[in-house]
Amino acid sequence: MPKTNDNPLYEELIKNYDVKLSHSGINGERIAKRLFELSQIGFSQVGGIKRPGFSDEEKAAKTLVKEWMVEAGLQVSEDGAGNVTARLEGLQKAPAIASGSHVDSVPNGGNFDGPLGVLSALEVVESWKETGYIPDKPYEVIIFSDEEGSRFNRGLTGSQAMIGAISDEEIAQLRDYNGETLEEVLTHYGSTLEAFKAAKRDLTELELFVEVHIEQGKKLEQADQPVGIVNGIAGPAWLKVVFVGEAGHAGNTPMTGRKDCLVAAAEFLQSIPEFPRAINNTAVATVGKLEVFPNGANVIPEKVEMLVDIRDINEEPRDLLIDQLIEQAEKVAIKHEVHVTTKLNTRIKPVPIANKLQTRLATSLKKFDIVPTYIPSGAGHDAMNLGRTIPVAMLFVRSKDGISHNPKEWSSLNDCVMGIHVLKDFIETSMKQ
Amino acid sequence: MPKTNDNPLYEELIKNYDVKLSHSGINGERIAKRLFELSQIGFSQVGGIKRPGFSDEEKAAKTLVKEWMVEAGLQVSEDGAGNVTARLEGLQKAPAIASGSHVDSVPNGGNFDGPLGVLSALEVVESWKETGYIPDKPYEVIIFSDEEGSRFNRGLTGSQAMIGAISDEEIAQLRDYNGETLEEVLTHYGSTLEAFKAAKRDLTELELFVEVHIEQGKKLEQADQPVGIVNGIAGPAWLKVVFVGEAGHAGNTPMTGRKDCLVAAAEFLQSIPEFPRAINNTAVATVGKLEVFPNGANVIPEKVEMLVDIRDINEEPRDLLIDQLIEQAEKVAIKHEVHVTTKLNTRIKPVPIANKLQTRLATSLKKFDIVPTYIPSGAGHDAMNLGRTIPVAMLFVRSKDGISHNPKEWSSLNDCVMGIHVLKDFIETSMKQ
Repeated sequence: MPKTNDNPLYEELIKNYDVKLSHSGINGERIAKRLFELSQIGFSQVGGIKRPGFSDEEKAAKTLVKEWMVEAGLQVSEDGAGNVTARLEGLQKAPAIASGSHVDSVPNGGNFDGPLGVLSALEVVESWKETGYIPDKPYEVIIFSDEEGSRFNRGLTGSQAMIGAISDEEIAQLRDYNGETLEEVLTHYGSTLEAFKAAKRDLTELELFVEVHIEQGKKLEQADQPVGIVNGIAGPAWLKVVFVGEAGHAGNTPMTGRKDCLVAAAEFLQSIPEFPRAINNTAVATVGKLEVFPNGANVIPEKVEMLVDIRDINEEPRDLLIDQLIEQAEKVAIKHEVHVTTKLNTRIKPVPIANKLQTRLATSLKKFDIVPTYIPSGAGHDAMNLGRTIPVAMLFVRSKDGISHNPKEWSSLNDCVMGIHVLKDFIETSMKQ
Repeated sequence: MPKTNDNPLYEELIKNYDVKLSHSGINGERIAKRLFELSQIGFSQVGGIKRPGFSDEEKAAKTLVKEWMVEAGLQVSEDGAGNVTARLEGLQKAPAIASGSHVDSVPNGGNFDGPLGVLSALEVVESWKETGYIPDKPYEVIIFSDEEGSRFNRGLTGSQAMIGAISDEEIAQLRDYNGETLEEVLTHYGSTLEAFKAAKRDLTELELFVEVHIEQGKKLEQADQPVGIVNGIAGPAWLKVVFVGEAGHAGNTPMTGRKDCLVAAAEFLQSIPEFPRAINNTAVATVGKLEVFPNGANVIPEKVEMLVDIRDINEEPRDLLIDQLIEQAEKVAIKHEVHVTTKLNTRIKPVPIANKLQTRLATSLKKFDIVPTYIPSGAGHDAMNLGRTIPVAMLFVRSKDGISHNPKEWSSLNDCVMGIHVLKDFIETSMKQ
């Protein structure tokens, strides 16, 4: 049994584990052990987990999982973008059902975001091995590269390479945290730019992709359920809003006649929450990034720049929200006699989850006495990219306090194992469709 | 006549000059020539004027003015803080009447902020020399060192040294833009720390100080008057307000239940202008500096820090405004379920201008058919420091478009000369009191 005083992850996981949950070939202790072994790679006592995409740490994590994949009898390959695919042939020749996630992390990350999805997908194979189950269709466990985006400040690199969504133009502009190009990073990793581009896959080889991921929110905690159903993956739109007013000396400019663009920006900012609330329960709009120019204590601001992050799981209400916020910014600017410009920097299509697959997941949940909770995924995931071409489904596992991207990230082993049971049932049901 | 293609200041000034304004010994051409000669020191075609306090350029500007002072028959001395005093004895032994300003500039500064006040004070002596007038009381022209504060990022160094307001503790902490201590800077300048501290003057030697300065605002332009009366010098208070909420993923956190401190900060920001407006016509409150943490596009902000610059020419309404804004910040924080802390970083006492002196200035203005406009000075000036101990008065000269601290800074020669006529009349009236 692994033991260390530095990283008590295994002990913490196993402490409150209900061993009765280990059945049908699914083994909670194995999950705990594997989560722990992965947590040793890139672990630092002060800084959480650090496994950036294409780093030696991400590679070591993949190497470790590949060993487990081989032991489980899977056919393992890796494409030029570093995506690992482990395949089990089925009774029929048919498009495969696939599941997986990633093993890279944000700087100062946790132990569940990514690894849980990979280990869950692999545990389904382990269970089949123990019970002698042979799937009707082929099954694939996939590890996507560089999901978090900490390498190049852009996420989902592996799955985007797999769907062929990274243009040559973007590739030419990419620079990592050391200022290296993608080609230089790939060379160090052991690949080439050519192989990276060749990672684009014919996705008709896959029937559907299902991803297990921690919730990174509090809805399951509030609903007191271990596992929930993702009902759509929100596509973010980033609206850049720039208010321009008239700078002036804070002391010498009377209050009347000011064209203070920060006051105008504030009126806009304050009104933002009303708009998504009026549209539906899933739309969100947030300003996380805002800068004031020249940002001097005694200077009336001349310019305020902000990014409004606008999301919904459906495109129509999301785009309505964008239009409403642009209109509101313009209305506020006129009122305050300042200028405003708006520009949509990013507009990613939301990915719907087919009702049929949500219903199938709900049927699986109910077998384990879990009441279905439907949760929009506000964050992007590898499933979002595959979902542009093939049907996808996602399961969320309860996150303690909704914390993620943080060493405090936590999901109980009971919840993790419940997720795997549901995943296994969903996959086995899908094998029969 | 000075000529240069690089710096057409003289030609620009003289172009629309009404020569009939040169009378009673006051000579507009001399003012234009002297403004031009000073503008050659630290001039760069792209960067405006650069004469930081204690620099070779500031020293050269003082040296030039000292020559003119000596030619005008004044007794010139310089204290250990670099303040230049040029004295003319009067018919009586009495406290002197003093006038002056500074010759240092901000980086990329203009030609009027500072020099106009010094040259105006000196022109009064020139006029007396030409007309044979001998003042009843002694008269002093003062050039203060390092008014703008670009050397040590703290202003009014010369006048503060003169009133003995710089503590040993502060002196120990001062570092200039090269990382040098005050002692090192003084050594290069040709002084010592001992002499700097000895610059503290017995201000009972002065009856009153009057400063001519460009307005740095638009009130005189709006009133269509060349010269106006400062009715008080606002003391700035800097209130640091920090809102702390709950960070979260912008996509995964539903709108309900958010503790978004930027939305709270925005409600506070938007409400700020109401408060000074409700108090009086002179109070102002401005947020020029604001920062958002962690300032990530997809992260609900955890912390927003801002400085509220709060000013009035009277202390009581200024302090009432501080209290009201603290209360408002707390109210908004409670409403949004976020935390707020407030801390007063700076609290400089406003300097009132005695009604008697304002009335005396108004009488002088009217002699030149100028309708008195009363303007609070939002910015600090050397007069503010002397005003802590002795009566002070200030005249503002109209600024084109209110622009200052910029190469575009401009006051017409007509307006400058009108300011000197008013100053001369005010000083001569004061000599008889």
